[in-house]
Amino acid sequence: MDYAQESLKLHYQWRGKQQIVPKMSVTTKEELSLAYTPGVAQPCLEIQKDVNKSYELTGRWNTVAVISDGTAVLGLGDIGPEASMPVMEGKCVLFKAFGDVEAIPLCVRSKEVDDIVNVVTLLAGSFGGINLEDIAAPRCFEIERKLKERCDIPIFHDDQHGTAVVTLAALINALKFVKKDLREIRVVTLGAGAAGVAIIKLLMAMGLKDVVMCDRQGAIYDGREGLNAEKAEMAKISNLSKKKGSLADVLKGADVFIGVSSPGTVTQEMVRSMAKGAILFPMSNPTPEIMPDLALEAGAAVVGTGRSDFPNQINNVLAFPGIFRGALDVRANDINDDMKIAAAYAIAGLVSDAELKSDYIIPAAFDPRIKNTVANAVAEAARRSGVARI
Amino acid sequence: MDYAQESLKLHYQWRGKQQIVPKMSVTTKEELSLAYTPGVAQPCLEIQKDVNKSYELTGRWNTVAVISDGTAVLGLGDIGPEASMPVMEGKCVLFKAFGDVEAIPLCVRSKEVDDIVNVVTLLAGSFGGINLEDIAAPRCFEIERKLKERCDIPIFHDDQHGTAVVTLAALINALKFVKKDLREIRVVTLGAGAAGVAIIKLLMAMGLKDVVMCDRQGAIYDGREGLNAEKAEMAKISNLSKKKGSLADVLKGADVFIGVSSPGTVTQEMVRSMAKGAILFPMSNPTPEIMPDLALEAGAAVVGTGRSDFPNQINNVLAFPGIFRGALDVRANDINDDMKIAAAYAIAGLVSDAELKSDYIIPAAFDPRIKNTVANAVAEAARRSGVARI
Repeated sequence: MDYAQESLKLHYQWRGKQQIVPKMSVTTKEELSLAYTPGVAQPCLEIQKDVNKSYELTGRWNTVAVISDGTAVLGLGDIGPEASMPVMEGKCVLFKAFGDVEAIPLCVRSKEVDDIVNVVTLLAGSFGGINLEDIAAPRCFEIERKLKERCDIPIFHDDQHGTAVVTLAALINALKFVKKDLREIRVVTLGAGAAGVAIIKLLMAMGLKDVVMCDRQGAIYDGREGLNAEKAEMAKISNLSKKKGSLADVLKGADVFIGVSSPGTVTQEMVRSMAKGAILFPMSNPTPEIMPDLALEAGAAVVGTGRSDFPNQINNVLAFPGIFRGALDVRANDINDDMKIAAAYAIAGLVSDAELKSDYIIPAAFDPRIKNTVANAVAEAARRSGVARI
Repeated sequence: MDYAQESLKLHYQWRGKQQIVPKMSVTTKEELSLAYTPGVAQPCLEIQKDVNKSYELTGRWNTVAVISDGTAVLGLGDIGPEASMPVMEGKCVLFKAFGDVEAIPLCVRSKEVDDIVNVVTLLAGSFGGINLEDIAAPRCFEIERKLKERCDIPIFHDDQHGTAVVTLAALINALKFVKKDLREIRVVTLGAGAAGVAIIKLLMAMGLKDVVMCDRQGAIYDGREGLNAEKAEMAKISNLSKKKGSLADVLKGADVFIGVSSPGTVTQEMVRSMAKGAILFPMSNPTPEIMPDLALEAGAAVVGTGRSDFPNQINNVLAFPGIFRGALDVRANDINDDMKIAAAYAIAGLVSDAELKSDYIIPAAFDPRIKNTVANAVAEAARRSGVARI
């Protein structure tokens, strides 16, 4: 199927992928007096007395804003806020379909960090959580940091943390399959944007020690010229032996390759140079850093990509709906590393030891067990780590 | 029925008065590829090429934001953004039920004019129109003025203009009933906030010449001490004979009283002092400036209030859903006086000459003809006045 043209045709028919449906009828004076004036004054007064009642008397408990500035949309780049809306509406559809979360797409007409921070901060009382989406690095890091300081609701940049969670889930099972320990392996990544940074931070929080991040210029090491703030920070905590050189150079002997960069950047030659039992997650979309069949032919033990037409799809939809479902269920004021790690283990745990094999390390996106399994694990982690409010 | 307690109970059950429903299913890889990646890239690219396509390929064409800072909510005053949410959700329900408009409630955590202006300006690309709601005067005037300058979509403060439209509609028919001409009558108002100012501006745009506005201190005249900017502006264009004194003083001989202030501020004595065929719209809610039966007993020819349990309910729900329906249908970039006046005549026109009587000057809120009649009249006025974009 020509997805592009068929999708365009459908978008002209849909004219918006969600609709809003009132939960009550307002066809009589009495109904109107209960849903609106004069009756509605009473719930207003209850919230005025105790602002936490906004979670019980309005839709806030289950409503998330999907916020974008349209600067890093899919692989399309900076296409502007209006042009990003079809993706944001689609994301909201996934929130509802996979997480029973009501999500509202809001596209911001500014690329200034403070504008986006201000909009979200000022609107935080209307929502139970914020999902940042398709905001370019390194700006996304500063926006997220400032929002986490200022807001009393969870702030979650899915391109960072959703990707990190599903990558960790896939890695947990892949390492189990090849019988290696996260604390003893060497990981090499290509791509040091939103996803690349978040993945490595989460893996390091889990115990990973030996990791070299690469960008287009090769290995990132402390002291390299022209690093942005985020890369400079990562250079201090990764690549402790200060390896220099190209991706091909640092990939020699590595156990794991994680790609969040561009198509065709990894060769079979490079795969052959990796350690025995090599794991490759070339997740560039739609075309991976190396195609799975080529990687397997060159000796890879496990390969996972972002694509639905190959085994082991590492897809954010496995994570974000259940993560928000769990966070909202306990009215968490944050989505922290404990919750993300719990989500990763919950996803990984859906593949039993008996089922685990090279081409089945992660459950399918449509696995009906995902939502509740992830949500329950996340809610429990929120309680354990003290960010649950109910 | 005890509306307060019954409404509170229902709000605990509803936990949000609207729900979001996707228009398509996403239960297979193929469906997901059309509603989301990779297919969704194509509509994004179409909008990037021509931003107007956002009205054809997303929900923007039919989506309105209901914006409040929670400072002037019902008769409750400044109760805060979270506490205003039940009203905003209710407003959104009315938008859908009476106008087929999708409306999203957004409550802003700030009372600064520029904060609210910035939030709305930055989000304008996500919506087809903006409904400002329950924002206190005089701040609401400045917010509206700045937003009209900066935004390319209609900005409509319903407490001002919705109220003005239905008041004008009621007055058109009431004057027809008592056989008086708007250009020759004297109008006295009590209350010079958002609604009072907008009503008088609209009536003057229609030809009213003799009008005295009062606030709690009595008649507003040019040069009176301590007037805020908006009242000072109104003082220059109203009360040209510079009448001074109390409401009782200036009401003597007046043809029309319009109240948007506080309960019990008008006495039977005052009504008796008015001209023959007096029209009274005491619209303070829920308790009018004078109860209808008292006003009629004192000789009023026509009385209209905001209450659904008396005849002649002057209710904004008659206006705003159809006004936005019409504005959205022609992708208007403004809701101007021509469109408001057209809406008022459309509403008034639904009461035929044969039906017109003292206790039936305005159609019922649930009259099924309202939406299309108002929407068509507004769309036509938008085209005529050059603000329609399709």
